[in-house]
Amino acid sequence: MSVQKPSIPKGTRDFGPVQVARRNYIFGVIRRVFEKFGFAPLETPTMENLSVLTGKYGDEGDQLLFKILNSGDFAKDVTAEDLTAGAKKILPKVAEKGLRYDLTVPFARYVVMNRGQLTLPFKRYQIQPVWRADRPQRGRYREFVQCDADVVGTTSLLCEAEIVLMIDEVLSTLGLTDFTIKINHRGVLSGIYQALGGVGRESDLFVAIDKLDKIGREGVTKELLERGFPQEAVDQVFGYLEVGGSFDAKLAALRTAFKQDGVLTDAAAGPAKGLQDLAEVQQYLQDFGFEHFERLDFDVTLARGLSYYTGCIFEVKVNNVQMGSISGGGRYDNLTGAFGLPGLSGVGFSFGVDRIYDVLEELQLFPEGAVAAPLCLVANFDAEGRGTALPLLRQLRAAGLSAELYPEVSKLKKQFEYADKRGIRFMLLAGSEERAGGVVKLRDMRAGSEQTVPATEVVATLQALA
Amino acid sequence: MSVQKPSIPKGTRDFGPVQVARRNYIFGVIRRVFEKFGFAPLETPTMENLSVLTGKYGDEGDQLLFKILNSGDFAKDVTAEDLTAGAKKILPKVAEKGLRYDLTVPFARYVVMNRGQLTLPFKRYQIQPVWRADRPQRGRYREFVQCDADVVGTTSLLCEAEIVLMIDEVLSTLGLTDFTIKINHRGVLSGIYQALGGVGRESDLFVAIDKLDKIGREGVTKELLERGFPQEAVDQVFGYLEVGGSFDAKLAALRTAFKQDGVLTDAAAGPAKGLQDLAEVQQYLQDFGFEHFERLDFDVTLARGLSYYTGCIFEVKVNNVQMGSISGGGRYDNLTGAFGLPGLSGVGFSFGVDRIYDVLEELQLFPEGAVAAPLCLVANFDAEGRGTALPLLRQLRAAGLSAELYPEVSKLKKQFEYADKRGIRFMLLAGSEERAGGVVKLRDMRAGSEQTVPATEVVATLQALA
Repeated sequence: MSVQKPSIPKGTRDFGPVQVARRNYIFGVIRRVFEKFGFAPLETPTMENLSVLTGKYGDEGDQLLFKILNSGDFAKDVTAEDLTAGAKKILPKVAEKGLRYDLTVPFARYVVMNRGQLTLPFKRYQIQPVWRADRPQRGRYREFVQCDADVVGTTSLLCEAEIVLMIDEVLSTLGLTDFTIKINHRGVLSGIYQALGGVGRESDLFVAIDKLDKIGREGVTKELLERGFPQEAVDQVFGYLEVGGSFDAKLAALRTAFKQDGVLTDAAAGPAKGLQDLAEVQQYLQDFGFEHFERLDFDVTLARGLSYYTGCIFEVKVNNVQMGSISGGGRYDNLTGAFGLPGLSGVGFSFGVDRIYDVLEELQLFPEGAVAAPLCLVANFDAEGRGTALPLLRQLRAAGLSAELYPEVSKLKKQFEYADKRGIRFMLLAGSEERAGGVVKLRDMRAGSEQTVPATEVVATLQALA
Repeated sequence: MSVQKPSIPKGTRDFGPVQVARRNYIFGVIRRVFEKFGFAPLETPTMENLSVLTGKYGDEGDQLLFKILNSGDFAKDVTAEDLTAGAKKILPKVAEKGLRYDLTVPFARYVVMNRGQLTLPFKRYQIQPVWRADRPQRGRYREFVQCDADVVGTTSLLCEAEIVLMIDEVLSTLGLTDFTIKINHRGVLSGIYQALGGVGRESDLFVAIDKLDKIGREGVTKELLERGFPQEAVDQVFGYLEVGGSFDAKLAALRTAFKQDGVLTDAAAGPAKGLQDLAEVQQYLQDFGFEHFERLDFDVTLARGLSYYTGCIFEVKVNNVQMGSISGGGRYDNLTGAFGLPGLSGVGFSFGVDRIYDVLEELQLFPEGAVAAPLCLVANFDAEGRGTALPLLRQLRAAGLSAELYPEVSKLKKQFEYADKRGIRFMLLAGSEERAGGVVKLRDMRAGSEQTVPATEVVATLQALA
């Protein structure tokens, strides 16, 4: 075996103790809120058949799928002609499986495969990594964790209201206060493009609208004109996008504008349904006693790219940190259609844990307890000392406290350094002098202070300090 | 998009709510014990460079690695001649990465890459899935989770003693009582093969010895004779393997036998070191006040296949269930040598969660709380009822209870069925009659009983019942 300098694949990361502990803290908060709201966990395999994944994320998505080489003699069916034809021709012969690209398609696959056993509505959450062969850059990784919650099998807008409550509770629990939960509705967006005669060019319009934050009215105007929208239509768009005031005021203003533009043609669909749904979600939140309406923003410019959304859409921004959206989602009416189960409505959303991590770090919101160091290190003096140290250690652990013995009889300085570097809060010293007196010295590494405690009271003392 | 009948890759599994909850219960117990003993979490990427993985698991292991196809035009360097030469020639041109095969090699890679920053001894635990392209069969999957804990950077045998304590605590906490922690030492095994002149043929001997449980003395004799060991040597082996009595008695008998056979040549290594280490581990366990020595078995026939072990080795069997070992490990002296960092001693062990899951299921040891259903379902009557139901729901959740509202106004029968199928324990009913009286009906779905509770006391009542 030759000696090599090891490395990890680009766009991937090792997570050391502090990072894992902090990530688990975030996952724990999300998981508890999901479960409190009645969502049950699901986990799907890392590998999916390419037949399940391909064609679900657009051409670009297909490119970004990580594919698994078939086992054994993978190239046996590849011909020299295939080589000339290129990768596209060869791929189906050498790879049948790929890595999970998101949690939504595996969820849809699971629902279809288990439709006979599932109780609808089915509320599931899923916290698992996904993989994308994207070009790595700051904040964008090839392996990252998504935290999704979805309800399928009901069109009830109570689900949308509960999504707002869950987002608010997760972020509040993590210590965030200055964030905005943006909500919009595909029906409202459809009203806008119907109003300006843009039907069939929705994506042109959405792409431009989505940039309003970044390039401003002038930039969006320029882009829309370049894309061939007439000046009049552009003015009309801004009439819609710049609707202001409270949630209710916006709803009323849009209703008036849609009426004027003659697009409230079908009361049960499109723009009319959009306004009605949003009003209903707001009503539920009021009934729930939601206290943070100032965090909820009906944002007509919110478009979200994913074409499968059909109803309400969500996106969450932290206001006091420069960062993209940390959560998003929406309602979809036909997610399982591709797998032969049409007409199953659902709504879901996702937290982006990597971004939340960065936000909490920047705002210094990680609690101290989120560091995975044991509470206490017992100093290792000698064979005789171990007669006291080992039973003590066992008592501490029996009381649920995390503790370890320095494994070797080393100089105390070295043992102190170890405790210090690992972030261990307390050191327990039972040298010959202490043992003779039936006491233990307890050093608070952070405060730099020491106290002497009867050996019989160490557990209680540390429990009180933990 | 054509409609397709979706499936998952063979050897992989979806985990529904009950399974995830039960698996998380096991992971939680293991994690808490690891942390109580001072181990800190590490997570490494799913993908590793093939240069890191290849050559670490033997030829068979290399075959069983899942390889990731390079992104983009993966076949651009493959020639027609390569096709003729076959998969082995093509592989390095089309794949640079593979899926994690175990947690030990990535750990060694991490230690080497971070040697400058790590505080030694370094105690890490890691709970992550691994992938092997093995032929799937009952109890053997292509994706499964390993739970490893290792200490590197110390030769202290306190670590071995603590491994015994951790295994005992994890399994006891999970409710198991009838299990055996087998311990042996590579030095003892080396003494045996030195004694019978088998040096250089250790693996022949180990493979045969490992089968003693299954094929008995007769079978092992036959196999050893077939492999060319003389009858005399075979008799001698059984003299060693059938050493009986207490831990101490076995140590004494082996010492005598080794002396007679003249293999105690180096007091600091080999068989002498093996006996000494085992005695020291036993002493530490006594100092710790370990109460379950009846579960610890010094088993001279324990060999364990992995060639990197150099000191103590462990394996755990549940006695009252037909099942392979559920945990195992040992000390290794040169795990990081392949990555250019020789001479770093470590010791570690691993729990096999899939097997533990099956054992707990067979013995019906999963606690009820390990089912991820919300505590209570609030019935959905009508718009008016929601004025009561939604604030109630919010109070329950604010108190930390998991609860949900049935999302649609459906017949009560359907709502009851939903609660029943999901395993929801309580149903809360606040119909017009109850609302008029300021009360709520609370139905215990399991007991089939109902009680009427003042609306103001529902939270406290449920908290007491939860």
